Amino acid sequence: MAKSTAMFGPVPGIRPGHEFASRLELWGAGVHRQTQAGISARQGEGAESIVLSGGYEDDEDLGDTILYTGRGGRSAESQQQIADQTLTGANAELARNVLLGLPVRVTRKVTEGSRSFYRYAGLYRIVRYWAESGRSGHRVWRFQLEALPELAESSAAGPATSQPTPLGLVQAPAAGYGPAPRRAASVLRLVRDTAVTRQVKTLYDYHCQVCQTRLSSPAGPYAEAAHVQPLGAPHHGPDVLANVLCLCPNHHVLFDYGSFAVADSGELLGLPGRLLVAPRHPIGPEFLAYHRTRFYEPQL
Amino acid sequence: MAKSTAMFGPVPGIRPGHEFASRLELWGAGVHRQTQAGISARQGEGAESIVLSGGYEDDEDLGDTILYTGRGGRSAESQQQIADQTLTGANAELARNVLLGLPVRVTRKVTEGSRSFYRYAGLYRIVRYWAESGRSGHRVWRFQLEALPELAESSAAGPATSQPTPLGLVQAPAAGYGPAPRRAASVLRLVRDTAVTRQVKTLYDYHCQVCQTRLSSPAGPYAEAAHVQPLGAPHHGPDVLANVLCLCPNHHVLFDYGSFAVADSGELLGLPGRLLVAPRHPIGPEFLAYHRTRFYEPQL
Repeated sequence: MAKSTAMFGPVPGIRPGHEFASRLELWGAGVHRQTQAGISARQGEGAESIVLSGGYEDDEDLGDTILYTGRGGRSAESQQQIADQTLTGANAELARNVLLGLPVRVTRKVTEGSRSFYRYAGLYRIVRYWAESGRSGHRVWRFQLEALPELAESSAAGPATSQPTPLGLVQAPAAGYGPAPRRAASVLRLVRDTAVTRQVKTLYDYHCQVCQTRLSSPAGPYAEAAHVQPLGAPHHGPDVLANVLCLCPNHHVLFDYGSFAVADSGELLGLPGRLLVAPRHPIGPEFLAYHRTRFYEPQL
Repeated sequence: MAKSTAMFGPVPGIRPGHEFASRLELWGAGVHRQTQAGISARQGEGAESIVLSGGYEDDEDLGDTILYTGRGGRSAESQQQIADQTLTGANAELARNVLLGLPVRVTRKVTEGSRSFYRYAGLYRIVRYWAESGRSGHRVWRFQLEALPELAESSAAGPATSQPTPLGLVQAPAAGYGPAPRRAASVLRLVRDTAVTRQVKTLYDYHCQVCQTRLSSPAGPYAEAAHVQPLGAPHHGPDVLANVLCLCPNHHVLFDYGSFAVADSGELLGLPGRLLVAPRHPIGPEFLAYHRTRFYEPQL
């Protein structure tokens, strides 16, 4: 990983759809500041850009959604996955984007007949990461990227206060920080509200199942419902009581980001103590196992 | 407030732009289940719909953004604000929508020449609430509404798993809960990431300034930066170090929702103790005062 300061966000003058003849041209434009590696990241700062070149057998490019496979464990000769990946190096930096809400520039390698070139796809948000067993049987880290709506150049160079767009995204002002203008997207913590999530909050009267905290505000108590196996693609967890926990925001963050997990016995892994479980709340062991194997990473 | 179960979300068959000749017709369609009141809310459940009829001198209708004034304190004769509003009754229910992420149906009264009718505007998310001194000098509660993108009817009736849209919003499945299908939007906790918010996290090494908690995950430490005077319209707080705090998610929620505030001395109001303040972090008393007067509501 390079030592210079990371540059996040759009590169002035480069719009989605812009084509580059080669990796060197892409590098020269500042879109992807690595000439060979697929991930351009700065240690401790996050990942600023990736290039999708079809090299990883587990990548899935669905357009606005990309399931991106982390780095490492591949054979240099066969390009096959021959060992487990770890959440270190560039993979840890991709995960850091999730925590910090940093956008990543995405470029695709395009092959048309005998001609290959690179097309800038725009900014994506990395919404989640997890580990799973790849096609090879080895453990790979997966990163779910979602396309961010394009921000107009005029607003990107805009006034000193942030401009929320109708999408609730914020174009941060280019502040005096580092050598290059850096702009950032927002962290959108998506906390789903459904009948089931309301049910679990009521069941625990808004107490956290980990720490028993109950946050109280002038508009009433506040808790968050955490889906154990996440809703929506690609996890497709069900929206049922057996798949949700009632947590305070702190433990929700820690659960989603894999700081702790729950054993089938209710014992916490990564934290001392046990989960508080109401008699009328039969939590599905299959969901707990899904979370443990994909999201939980014991810390050294 | 009526006693029946609240019905949130879209009314089948009614798309934005649908026109109704009268309040009675609006009531009959199930869009606004009150024949006179501007807010239709159910005690303890939240507000399901509002009608903007131009009755409140402090309302501001900007299209996709609406600054809506709470109920109460008006003279029945003059319609002028003659007393302070309180965060009770329907106003408390509007605030509950913020906490629970519940969408609200919005209908506008339209007057064209001598003809008046009602036009359904669609679903809005209530993103924030605060108190301020209205034009009359009396205290009013203000609710900031943002238009939600329309969800296609087909996906609204869709499969049993939630479908994230490109906007990160989720169409929750219509679960068996209450007599009518109820669909809900997501709570999007917007946590802004800018150079300044990264700076404040570094300054405190990700420790919460209220409780000194430092959340740790496999991808690194996690904290949130809270703008004291919020960024963006209508508050226009600046994105400067003097206007941000480093908080854990729990205290961020409590701060935004007015459970506590900070005195100029650094003493906490609504919570015991004092704010931890680093020597290189001169917090602006004008921002603390802005937050105290608008967001803080001492709990009984």
